[in-house]
Amino acid sequence: MKLASYSTAEGAGYGCVVGDGIVALSTAFGDRAPTLRDLLARGLLDEAAALAKASKPDLALGAVAFDPVIPNPDKIICVGLNYRDHVAETGRTVTEKPALFARYAGSQIGHLAPLVTPKVSDEFDYEGELAVIIGKSGRHIAARDALAHVAGYACYNEGSIRDWQRHTTQFLSGKTFAGTGAFGPWMVTSDEIADPSKLTLETRINGQVVQHTTTDLMITDIPGLIAYISTILPLLPGDVIVSGTPGGVGAKRNPPLWMRPGDVAEVEISGIGVLRNPVVAETA
Amino acid sequence: MKLASYSTAEGAGYGCVVGDGIVALSTAFGDRAPTLRDLLARGLLDEAAALAKASKPDLALGAVAFDPVIPNPDKIICVGLNYRDHVAETGRTVTEKPALFARYAGSQIGHLAPLVTPKVSDEFDYEGELAVIIGKSGRHIAARDALAHVAGYACYNEGSIRDWQRHTTQFLSGKTFAGTGAFGPWMVTSDEIADPSKLTLETRINGQVVQHTTTDLMITDIPGLIAYISTILPLLPGDVIVSGTPGGVGAKRNPPLWMRPGDVAEVEISGIGVLRNPVVAETA
Repeated sequence: MKLASYSTAEGAGYGCVVGDGIVALSTAFGDRAPTLRDLLARGLLDEAAALAKASKPDLALGAVAFDPVIPNPDKIICVGLNYRDHVAETGRTVTEKPALFARYAGSQIGHLAPLVTPKVSDEFDYEGELAVIIGKSGRHIAARDALAHVAGYACYNEGSIRDWQRHTTQFLSGKTFAGTGAFGPWMVTSDEIADPSKLTLETRINGQVVQHTTTDLMITDIPGLIAYISTILPLLPGDVIVSGTPGGVGAKRNPPLWMRPGDVAEVEISGIGVLRNPVVAETA
Repeated sequence: MKLASYSTAEGAGYGCVVGDGIVALSTAFGDRAPTLRDLLARGLLDEAAALAKASKPDLALGAVAFDPVIPNPDKIICVGLNYRDHVAETGRTVTEKPALFARYAGSQIGHLAPLVTPKVSDEFDYEGELAVIIGKSGRHIAARDALAHVAGYACYNEGSIRDWQRHTTQFLSGKTFAGTGAFGPWMVTSDEIADPSKLTLETRINGQVVQHTTTDLMITDIPGLIAYISTILPLLPGDVIVSGTPGGVGAKRNPPLWMRPGDVAEVEISGIGVLRNPVVAETA
């Protein structure tokens, strides 16, 4: 099942993508689950699947504006330096532990919405990543149990403002600019992706491949990330883990390759789909 | 005006602290402003002040369990290495830009609630800090206009798990353990604190002074922090900026001074009050 969050003239909603249509689950569930995060928190995935199967699409895919898959997560946890080829290109050494940093929800955009180059920097870089959406709460989750806590997977372009990322040792400043985190196009539920280490991820700028990896090359795999993070604090339904980018980022090319207004960035993951975003300049 | 968030047997609320009582503003405002964050977002501070002045306390201070001042902020932005004496004791050099990192709301506790030493570490350190609560939204806020965006100030004990903080270059892992961020006892509105650079901050463990500073010794002052952060993304009502800790942290003492179960940690800031928390061990 593909679940998307979106807005129409009637407001924000979410639904199940079927072909080129959407079954408007938010209309069907109403106050029982006003957002996709609520649907996950209330354990309504099976009911949603049954409803989607029995329904005809309410909306055409082309008639909605996609929002970030989870527009209102309690937390977005990003993982730095989680592929060996990316660690190597940054000149760092592999650490035993995952390098975690945050991104705030206000930095996110949905599929087809514009990525925004800020006025204060030209160094806007792409990072294609696999996003993991938590379905079931937990603390101290063992790696062997971790995948049972996952609701689904999506594509993420973890857009980074490299000069601001390097202002200090802490990445956050360059990782949470408004309009830099693309999250979509939808979440594919985990019943359709039995093993998240068997996916292929590709990032393209204007159609040209700039990153290509298989997810088995992660240094800390998805179960390992869930175990590590849930040692720190509880994971909640709707939490998003952005699991790291492979080699090929723009900052480490010679000359560097920055995203510029007019470009189109795509992140494609096998079994999920293509997240596509035009790039614009910040206005006002 | 002192505004506190709290819980009683009837649920979560917030109110104005008057002497040793509380005027239950959440009861008075009802659906107009169910949380203190909503009160700020809807611009109801003046109305709240008038109401508090005209009312008798509904609850005794001793009858409530304090929650974090803002239990549900959109973002908590922490500042590392923002006092010269703390930068010096860490062996780092002063950077021109503030080192920002995040803390998740799920790591916060209120006044008198227990700080939790996690099972996986003994290195639980205190960090007394001035917390700034945003009242008015803004992006690209100029430093000269910044204080008009502040709703008020509170004490923060930005409890840090030092070995986890040092797992990688990124601080987040050690900065967001459940039950490590104490935020209280209440917010004092900015009409009572005209200049946040004229405050005295003290941290005590079991009554012994371990940190003492005046806030004019910050490297980047509060207006400068607001200007820098709002260049990155909009600040929203209820957002919390935790502005950095002075020298004297436990990790840099010889021998190190860690918080242990049975200890009592206090952060006192002039014009605000005393945030007091016992320390317990993680259970379950």
